[in-house]
Amino acid sequence: MTDSQFRDLHNVKIILKYDGTRYQGWQIQPRGRTIQGELTRVLSLLDHRAVTVHGAGRTDSGVHAEGQVASFLMEREFEPGRLRDAINGNLDPDIRVSAVEPVDESFHARYSATQKTYKYRVCMGPVASPFEYRYVYHFRSTLDAARMRDAAAVLQGRHDFSAFTDGDSEASDHIRHLRSLEVEQNGDTLTIVAVADGFLRYMVRTIAGTLIDVGRGYRDSESVLTALKQRDRRLAGPTAPAAGLTLLRVDY
Amino acid sequence: MTDSQFRDLHNVKIILKYDGTRYQGWQIQPRGRTIQGELTRVLSLLDHRAVTVHGAGRTDSGVHAEGQVASFLMEREFEPGRLRDAINGNLDPDIRVSAVEPVDESFHARYSATQKTYKYRVCMGPVASPFEYRYVYHFRSTLDAARMRDAAAVLQGRHDFSAFTDGDSEASDHIRHLRSLEVEQNGDTLTIVAVADGFLRYMVRTIAGTLIDVGRGYRDSESVLTALKQRDRRLAGPTAPAAGLTLLRVDY
Repeated sequence: MTDSQFRDLHNVKIILKYDGTRYQGWQIQPRGRTIQGELTRVLSLLDHRAVTVHGAGRTDSGVHAEGQVASFLMEREFEPGRLRDAINGNLDPDIRVSAVEPVDESFHARYSATQKTYKYRVCMGPVASPFEYRYVYHFRSTLDAARMRDAAAVLQGRHDFSAFTDGDSEASDHIRHLRSLEVEQNGDTLTIVAVADGFLRYMVRTIAGTLIDVGRGYRDSESVLTALKQRDRRLAGPTAPAAGLTLLRVDY
Repeated sequence: MTDSQFRDLHNVKIILKYDGTRYQGWQIQPRGRTIQGELTRVLSLLDHRAVTVHGAGRTDSGVHAEGQVASFLMEREFEPGRLRDAINGNLDPDIRVSAVEPVDESFHARYSATQKTYKYRVCMGPVASPFEYRYVYHFRSTLDAARMRDAAAVLQGRHDFSAFTDGDSEASDHIRHLRSLEVEQNGDTLTIVAVADGFLRYMVRTIAGTLIDVGRGYRDSESVLTALKQRDRRLAGPTAPAAGLTLLRVDY
């Protein structure tokens, strides 16, 4: 039993935005900068001890977040706005804490999450804006959004999504409830918004890659249903590039 | 008389977007990367000769554009979409040609322009988004938009704007017609939109800096009128940071 178990630890929830372009994803790694690694460095500095940071979603290398959630225990007690500013002051501007909230000891960013929302953006036009190219998959051709919506309808609901993951060693099963899968078109930009109780590794990007194949006429809804039912990764489409993916929000 | 004077030259107009963060402004310089320098390099490469590129507005170091216009003469004739792709293929993704249009020989990006529109964005919240921090002035405090609108009204119209420029050696006079100067607030973001027949060097940023001083209560509309009438730069506010400024469009 160590001293720290006798101290009062404060459980803290933070909401994060990041441009994932320059990071090797969420998860801390021996080499390369990661979001979890940066947060661990800064929080350990502020708390004068090794702080363990839990993230709601382990975003892959190059994936962005507008509403990632993390939680951690701290010995020192900070006023929320001051903690937010203290963390941000020690991070590069491509990672920002937008909110800090004290939470009770039962809260865990990952295990308490009940729903996540991701968006996947595709630029269909010939030119990707200098202000957006980091956050889109520049596909350059028009996709048939109506066809994609039909195929998206096939995937909605509670299913075994084994065909739409490259294997997720941390997942106990591959059954997820895809509550909503919308395809929106706004000019040259096509956005896929996926809401589920949880996502498997590469699941949103494989769904996006498969729907893009439908939108370009390479496959139809029937083939998507077959992949889903067969639970065979080889029957689904490619994993779409990381840059287009953003974790929008996590619900509890 | 050189050979080139006997050749048919094609006059071309292009519309440009750029993230000016990594550039030393529009104008070509002996050292440092500039937008005009990058375009000159690429167009000279494509035309196998030294191409002179004229820009509508000489944006300063760090200033962005959503609708800058440039024009130049080329010997080779390209289909517009192919020329756009050929230029973009040789530029970094933070500069993009969004449109190419063949124009008659009388067109000149700078001298033919009749109106320019700039926006200046201020982030008033405690946290600047990782997706927007390059394109805003992160002021961190709330500004009084109503007070700023009153002061903006003072500046609208045809005036000698000597108080709002750091001297413009290329301008024959300092009289400009500021057709519109709007202050819009959307959540934590405040946007100043300025439309004029032309702008002096630093004019939008000095107007923005002066309006920000009004919005934070450091000065009133009366003092803005005094600066304008006295034509004295020392009576206006500071030059606001370059990052917040974007050239939105140029009209002909």
